[in-house]
Amino acid sequence: MDERTFIDWLKKRSGPIPGEESPVRTGIGDDMAVLELAGQTLLLGSDMIVQGVHFDWDRASPEQVGRKALAVCLSDCAAMACEPTAAVVSFAKPDDLGPEVLKRVYHGLFSTAERFGCSIVGGDSCGGSDRLVIDVAVLGAANGVGPVLRSGGRAGDYLYVTGKLGGSILGSHLDFTPRVSEARWLAVNLSVHAMIDLSDGLSTDVGHICRASGCGAELVEDLLEKVISDAARRLSATSGRDPLDHALNDGEDFELLAAIDLSPDELPQMPEGLALFHVGKIVGGTSVTLIDSTGRSRALPSGGYAHF
Amino acid sequence: MDERTFIDWLKKRSGPIPGEESPVRTGIGDDMAVLELAGQTLLLGSDMIVQGVHFDWDRASPEQVGRKALAVCLSDCAAMACEPTAAVVSFAKPDDLGPEVLKRVYHGLFSTAERFGCSIVGGDSCGGSDRLVIDVAVLGAANGVGPVLRSGGRAGDYLYVTGKLGGSILGSHLDFTPRVSEARWLAVNLSVHAMIDLSDGLSTDVGHICRASGCGAELVEDLLEKVISDAARRLSATSGRDPLDHALNDGEDFELLAAIDLSPDELPQMPEGLALFHVGKIVGGTSVTLIDSTGRSRALPSGGYAHF
Repeated sequence: MDERTFIDWLKKRSGPIPGEESPVRTGIGDDMAVLELAGQTLLLGSDMIVQGVHFDWDRASPEQVGRKALAVCLSDCAAMACEPTAAVVSFAKPDDLGPEVLKRVYHGLFSTAERFGCSIVGGDSCGGSDRLVIDVAVLGAANGVGPVLRSGGRAGDYLYVTGKLGGSILGSHLDFTPRVSEARWLAVNLSVHAMIDLSDGLSTDVGHICRASGCGAELVEDLLEKVISDAARRLSATSGRDPLDHALNDGEDFELLAAIDLSPDELPQMPEGLALFHVGKIVGGTSVTLIDSTGRSRALPSGGYAHF
Repeated sequence: MDERTFIDWLKKRSGPIPGEESPVRTGIGDDMAVLELAGQTLLLGSDMIVQGVHFDWDRASPEQVGRKALAVCLSDCAAMACEPTAAVVSFAKPDDLGPEVLKRVYHGLFSTAERFGCSIVGGDSCGGSDRLVIDVAVLGAANGVGPVLRSGGRAGDYLYVTGKLGGSILGSHLDFTPRVSEARWLAVNLSVHAMIDLSDGLSTDVGHICRASGCGAELVEDLLEKVISDAARRLSATSGRDPLDHALNDGEDFELLAAIDLSPDELPQMPEGLALFHVGKIVGGTSVTLIDSTGRSRALPSGGYAHF
């Protein structure tokens, strides 16, 4: 059973609790859950990072590890276009991981939290683990904007990404900027029908939008060429894989993929620091395809990182 | 550095974010954080359980593991007297832990969530871990009651626990009932000044209330005799430790310890299923002492389970 199958099972198994008036507007299956509490739209989500899977001590400083633990969760806030409000941080650590390293991890957490206006308000700590495992749960607030779900994509929407993709393992998976303010701008100023953050890789994450929206997508190779990162090209030189393969499948880009009903010509002036790169379109059907430079279409398998 | 020293450091390092109007009323250091959002009092907390530390597969079924992962977090809601509203569940699992076991863990999670009216709305999943690690974050709502903090204890308050203590390792750490509804009743009907759930053991948790409230406490051996659980007595037969030692120090009882300004004689009739056992008093100073049957007082060291 892969992660998607398991999440499908979870979605089916969850659902409203009988006899309760549910505050849940969107539950398992989007980047965060959407709750209506006392007339306010709140969002709740969590992300876990595991030593040896999401970071290694020989390539990441403790500050970077703390930073990443929170930033992946803030990236979920960006995907929903909500404002992060408060976070709780739990960790399980090896018994020989000392307080100095732990404090540096928390320096990374706190400085990232401060930068994004998100207070770290609690959590839990455990010893007895073989690896450092950190979980961050974030409470976000819509504050009158969005939330933007994965499920609003419609045939005809243009697909945009907010930055270059691929090769994150060379470093950007540790120092990416969660696109929180960019997402707010997009949701306020454009008609964003659906959005997701690119954690699994474009080829996989576009499929998440398609399944949630009940549609297909076409990605265009000639457009994708322009969003291949320098890191993807560098990595390609040693990996033997095509740079485009890296851009489509590496994952942990943490840029946004947005379905917007405006063509590139119709887009307004973007604020400084925000760029939208056109990469394809939402179409009818349920298939995700890649259009090559001769106009030929072929199926694009979901080739991103699978956790299971 | 023990856990308390680390949490003291965290409390100092955290605090309001400059330039932001903070929604945080109580941050790191209580059972949950208290937030004011749009006029509503919300609570946020998380708890992590680790295979080999909080459960073992040879003594716990997958359903019990899922149940415990959520129940420890619901017990925090009880400590604050809030209503659990929604939870997110993240896990890291060994690659050879298959979907059938995982589904059974989630059956335990979902059935507990349903029983307490708390929707499981999202989370995260990771492979690549040596042990199963589960983190649950819960969003609670005060809904006009409390929250009851650790910090409201006053000299003269009577200390009560809601059930028998000790020997949880023999089974109750897997099937305890989080005292959510009991806590709500107490907070509505009595003047509860301070409350905590007994996760670390009475000798440690009473110290948490004392430090937060700036006071001391006296526990009375003759009263404690009445709250020693059968499990503590059974365990004593093989451990060579006194049953009272188990009751004071074992931890994971998940009963409530409450500071209430009513003597046992002044307590009203309790609803069915709720009992308050008088175990001592809040006093001036900062020491926690144990009074023996001859009236002699001795220091009660914090002997509960320490995670670090």
